[in-house]
Formats: sequence, structure tokens, C-alpha cells
Amino acid sequence: MAQAPLHFYFDFISPYGYLASLRIEELAARHGRTVEWHAMLLGVSVMKVMGLKPLMDTPLKGDYARRDLNRGLRRLSLRLARGVDGPVMEPLAAARAFHWVKQHHPPLAGALAKAIYDAYWRQGVDLSTPQAVAAIALPAGIDAAALLAGIQGDEGRALLRNAVDASLKAGVFGSPTVVVDGEMFWGADRLAEVDEWLARGGW
Amino acid sequence: MAQAPLHFYFDFISPYGYLASLRIEELAARHGRTVEWHAMLLGVSVMKVMGLKPLMDTPLKGDYARRDLNRGLRRLSLRLARGVDGPVMEPLAAARAFHWVKQHHPPLAGALAKAIYDAYWRQGVDLSTPQAVAAIALPAGIDAAALLAGIQGDEGRALLRNAVDASLKAGVFGSPTVVVDGEMFWGADRLAEVDEWLARGGW
Repeated sequence: MAQAPLHFYFDFISPYGYLASLRIEELAARHGRTVEWHAMLLGVSVMKVMGLKPLMDTPLKGDYARRDLNRGLRRLSLRLARGVDGPVMEPLAAARAFHWVKQHHPPLAGALAKAIYDAYWRQGVDLSTPQAVAAIALPAGIDAAALLAGIQGDEGRALLRNAVDASLKAGVFGSPTVVVDGEMFWGADRLAEVDEWLARGGW
Repeated sequence: MAQAPLHFYFDFISPYGYLASLRIEELAARHGRTVEWHAMLLGVSVMKVMGLKPLMDTPLKGDYARRDLNRGLRRLSLRLARGVDGPVMEPLAAARAFHWVKQHHPPLAGALAKAIYDAYWRQGVDLSTPQAVAAIALPAGIDAAALLAGIQGDEGRALLRNAVDASLKAGVFGSPTVVVDGEMFWGADRLAEVDEWLARGGW
């Protein structure tokens, strides 16, 4: 029987989520696993449920995160068109697009997530409107007009709401979060631990 | 010329600080470095300056931290008399003791920090009073009566206040934090990155 997928939770506005998204599939594949992608909203988990400020607006921690993220980019020799501490887009259109595709073309959800992440962070495209999301280079098999209708309709809204509720019920609060066979790991800096967990079969 | 020490910032009430304290000197020594220990107060940085709740009282994140810490203990085969999510002691007596020793017996400060951490976490001793701190197994060279006077006098209070101010000026907010040649790494899960930073001479 095939093993359960790794569950990868992320917010498109999260630079740490972006960094982890570049490595999660290779990590999973090395252990014979696939990845199920889950777009969530930090605006709900961090701000509404936890009652915290956005990371970059938190005194001291925001300054550290800026330096830490830039250090992470240098380590990966990554050049992004978008600064890690710039204004944050409204992620609803992108997250609804993701969940509409996950519902209607499940095998393409991961490819769409990566395409959105790449457009937003590496290329620096503003994706705060449904039109902008539908206009990126979409994975083959996703029709831009159908996607736009999906983002703007009630279904996309409902799918995202349900997904965010489910992520909170699973205890997920941060981006990225990886859940492996029910075990949760929070943070881009924990991918090595996920790797070790999979190699050893837990501890 | 000898290289600068690693600066290790911690709060005695921090279980992640405790876990890192068990590994920091071995890590530093592998790179020909020593460790300068710095007791700080999360009650000042996290609660007063950052305006956040204590970790264990933060919805979702507290639950995760409990699981994550217990996973970290299992990985190290550590058994502690104190649960990672129990009531938190008042750390002022321990932190004043540390800074009084750092002022008067600088070479013994790290040993005292480790003795306090061991008494509090592994042995489960309540160290919320000056008397309790002075009664632990102290490193040779520290006189219990002199230490008790140091904790209770104005000097210990002033030394701790100055140290906490200095840690905030250095941008330190969390426990543990390691500063290597001006570069800051926050979190017990970043020790591997500190190791790599030292091995590569940065990036």
C-alpha cells in the first residue's frame, strides 16, 4: 500500500513557506512519499486565533526575520524580485485559486502552488486580484477563464473557508507546517528534522 | 589572536534554552571557540517589548510547543523531573545569581548556568527564591553565603537589569539565541545552522 502523503501547509504571503516549498517535494520523494499541498491563511491563525501581530510588525522579531530570511536566500543563491519585508499582498485570490484547482484538478494543485509562489516571490508579480492570479503562467490543464470564474464564485470562497477551518482543527498555525503521519513540524528550519523523522521512522 | 566567543543568550525558564545549553559548548569547542553565557528575561523581551503572550499560553502554538519539546527530549533520551509545560518559576533569583557570579567569578558563569539549568529542569528543583538558588550544588569556587548576599543585594539587581537592557539593544528577544561574530541565530533548532556558519565562515 502506498504511504500517506506529507501534508504541507503554507500561506502564499509567507516567505518561509516559499523557501520550504522549493524543497518539500524532493524531500518527500527521497522517502517514497508524495506531497499534499494545503494553502492556509496566517491572517486567520496568527491574527484572529492566536491574537498575535504579523511577524514583520513584531518588535525585535521582525528585524530578526528580515536578516534571517535574507541569510536563507544567500545560502540558496536565490535572487527574488520581491523583498522579504515588503508590503504584504491580500492572499485571498491566490488561496481561492489554489483550492478551486485542488477540488477540480487535484493532481495539478501542487504545480499551481509552485507557479503562484514563483510569480509572487521570484518574479515579484502582484497577485492581489483574481485577474492577476489567472494571468500567471498556469500549469498545463488549467484554463485561465475557468480559474477566474472559480476564484470569483462562491465555491472558491467556500473551499478556502473549509480548508482554513480544517487547518486550524489540525492544529496548524504557522507557515510552513509539515504533518507526517500525524506528527507536526513547524518552520522552514525543521525540514532537516522531517527528513530525519522519515529516515528513522520517528522516535 | 583568539577568536571571539559565541554569545549564548538564554532564560532559565526556557525549555528550548535548556536543550540548547546542553550542546552549545561542545559546538563552540569544535570550532575553537568559547561560549559567553548571557541570562536574559523573556518576561521583558516577549511580554513587555514585543507585546506577546508567553509561549505556552499562546493558542495552537502552546500545544505545538509541548509536543515539539517532548519530541526533542525523546530524541536526546532525556528524562526531566520537570514537565515542559508546568507552571513557570519566577526567574529573577536565578538570573541575578548568574550575573553576580559572572561579575565576580567570570570563568565560573557558564558552570553556574549549567548547574542552575540542571537543578531546575532535570532535577525539578523550585528555584524561585534566593535561598533555593544558593542551595543547589554550586561549582567549586562559589561560596553559597556570598552568592545569597549577591542575589539579595542591589548589585545583583542592577547587574541583571543592565544585562537585560544590553540583550535588547543587541536585538535579542528569544531563548536560546546565539550570536556569532555579530550574526544572530534564534532557536534551539538553529544550532546546526550555527555549526555550518562557523564551518563555512558565513555566507
